[in-house]
Amino acid sequence: MTDDKATAVGGNRIERVYERIDPEEFDALLFFDMRNIRYLTGFTGSDGVLLLRPDRGALLVDGRYITQAAEQSPHCEVVRYADKVSGIAAALTEWEARRVGFEASALTVELYERIRERVGTARLTSLDGRLSCLRGRKDAEEISSIRRAIDIATETLTALLPFLNAGWSEREIALELDCRMRALGSEENSFPTIVASGPNAALPHARPGNRVLAAGDPVIIDFGAVYRGYRSDETCSLVVGRPDGEYLKAYAVVKEAHDRAIAAVRAGVSGREIDGVARRHIEERGYGPYFTHGTGHGVGLDVHEDPRLSPLSDQILAPGMVVTVEPGIYLPGRWGIRIEDMVLVGEDGCEVLTRIPKELRIIGS
Amino acid sequence: MTDDKATAVGGNRIERVYERIDPEEFDALLFFDMRNIRYLTGFTGSDGVLLLRPDRGALLVDGRYITQAAEQSPHCEVVRYADKVSGIAAALTEWEARRVGFEASALTVELYERIRERVGTARLTSLDGRLSCLRGRKDAEEISSIRRAIDIATETLTALLPFLNAGWSEREIALELDCRMRALGSEENSFPTIVASGPNAALPHARPGNRVLAAGDPVIIDFGAVYRGYRSDETCSLVVGRPDGEYLKAYAVVKEAHDRAIAAVRAGVSGREIDGVARRHIEERGYGPYFTHGTGHGVGLDVHEDPRLSPLSDQILAPGMVVTVEPGIYLPGRWGIRIEDMVLVGEDGCEVLTRIPKELRIIGS
Repeated sequence: MTDDKATAVGGNRIERVYERIDPEEFDALLFFDMRNIRYLTGFTGSDGVLLLRPDRGALLVDGRYITQAAEQSPHCEVVRYADKVSGIAAALTEWEARRVGFEASALTVELYERIRERVGTARLTSLDGRLSCLRGRKDAEEISSIRRAIDIATETLTALLPFLNAGWSEREIALELDCRMRALGSEENSFPTIVASGPNAALPHARPGNRVLAAGDPVIIDFGAVYRGYRSDETCSLVVGRPDGEYLKAYAVVKEAHDRAIAAVRAGVSGREIDGVARRHIEERGYGPYFTHGTGHGVGLDVHEDPRLSPLSDQILAPGMVVTVEPGIYLPGRWGIRIEDMVLVGEDGCEVLTRIPKELRIIGS
Repeated sequence: MTDDKATAVGGNRIERVYERIDPEEFDALLFFDMRNIRYLTGFTGSDGVLLLRPDRGALLVDGRYITQAAEQSPHCEVVRYADKVSGIAAALTEWEARRVGFEASALTVELYERIRERVGTARLTSLDGRLSCLRGRKDAEEISSIRRAIDIATETLTALLPFLNAGWSEREIALELDCRMRALGSEENSFPTIVASGPNAALPHARPGNRVLAAGDPVIIDFGAVYRGYRSDETCSLVVGRPDGEYLKAYAVVKEAHDRAIAAVRAGVSGREIDGVARRHIEERGYGPYFTHGTGHGVGLDVHEDPRLSPLSDQILAPGMVVTVEPGIYLPGRWGIRIEDMVLVGEDGCEVLTRIPKELRIIGS
């Protein structure tokens, strides 16, 4: 495939698609995942479909997005549909596409059945796990955007930390973080900010509430910024005043699990192996049942994306991937601890991208 | 079904399910849509599955959510899975469920195929459009939450408007709106705030950028707050200083289309009919090709939900439904106008819930 063709829809990124899928196998590929569509075309709208072959791309969008799609995706044809299914059927006919691969992980059964009724004898084939880690390896521009998102988050929390103490509510802390990040250029929250104090910190995905920080409270702050669509993700575990002994012990266990997992990150290692490094340490110290989630995940246009670092993941790390490392221990009804950094995978190790140190930090009571 | 059974998972809301689906037809229903799961169980997590029959409910969640699910959904059994597909298969076996209905519009083809491989001879049947408008009719508590979200948005924009003028960037306006809403108690943005000025306003779903408002600019502000999970959605179209004549003419057309559509809203009328009222007026005035989206949509736990007010919608309005009415005209490369209110459907008409008047508003240049 020539460079010319490779830039038909978005630089060399479609090469990533056809490294995974034989260009001869299908007459066209149908993309439904809006992050993948953004990655391949530049289109940032909330709804649309990408029809792709090595030398041609068409963005099918509704009326809200025709002008925007034409501006953002100059290398694609832009086709307006009134009804998505009819639009897809018409485009497949126009392309004479009879062997069609599609993103089964981003298409609902309902839409699939309606498309199938309309495409006659054309054969729809799930691309299954073949697009796994499509956006995994980041290029220099993507890494630069991620670094900028991390900078915004770092500056925000660093400026706020000296003022935090007992008396702040979870909601107030989240509000300050979110608004300061926006003021510094974050496009939106990377995900809903978590500020969880006391027993709320035992819920790994708690939402900030009206609970007010009190002396002795452990606090989990998990937050991130967005720059040019690319996200940051970081968790700090703090304590208001004097922590109890069990907390101190568990903090050291999580921190050691976190550090060991980071030391194990390098190209060629599987997500399961990295997870195992953190999990084994926590299990050996007797907290195994209280580490209730995976060790990490890729971050980019989405806050949770491939590769996954979990007991079930056979995805292999490669240079340029950006992943979180975030072991935790959660004691229901008491407290929780999670320590999370983002790292950039290299050939022989990794670079920690996150800039806030993860030593135990005590804030005013 | 007794009241006791009806409260098994979430008050009388499961009656809404079994008004639509014969309780004898299936041994169990599988819900995947997180808004429907929240509606039926109270669980607000980001991932999980609900298994339901008239007298029993089970929330299947991963380790992050076991404690939260137990707290938020006391009427459900909470079952932890390591792998979602295995968890579903095990629960269906335990329930001896052989005839299973599922939300085809919320399940991906990939997950569906993996579930099918695991459930042996159990029969999976799509519930198709049978759950249409499940959350459509709001109860008193839901309407009260929506009113509070609208109050927050109203207070926010009303306080900001006197200060807006040429020199503000789109991004700065969006930042002020978002942070002030949060400070007034909004849990998050109802959707990404749109502030689109000049030619950007011709893109119905533009994202706020660094463009600075200048004299003569039309501006579209589309924003909303969230209270107890319930959302507001409202659009104001403003002008900086003196608008051009064509804009004034088109504004009057959109406003009249908006007012006529609202006057037509009442129980028993279809979404298509309401859309037709607005669309006909805009077409008659020669702007038909520039009204590129539907006239409105339901709002509740989701900002876009049933019923739809569009040329394709045969959904019928019923008392207690809350919908937007938002016709628009967009001239590519020049400007756009959209006027949007939320209304509460009644037997003989509707109540306009939105409180900011929609007369043309001129801000300082």
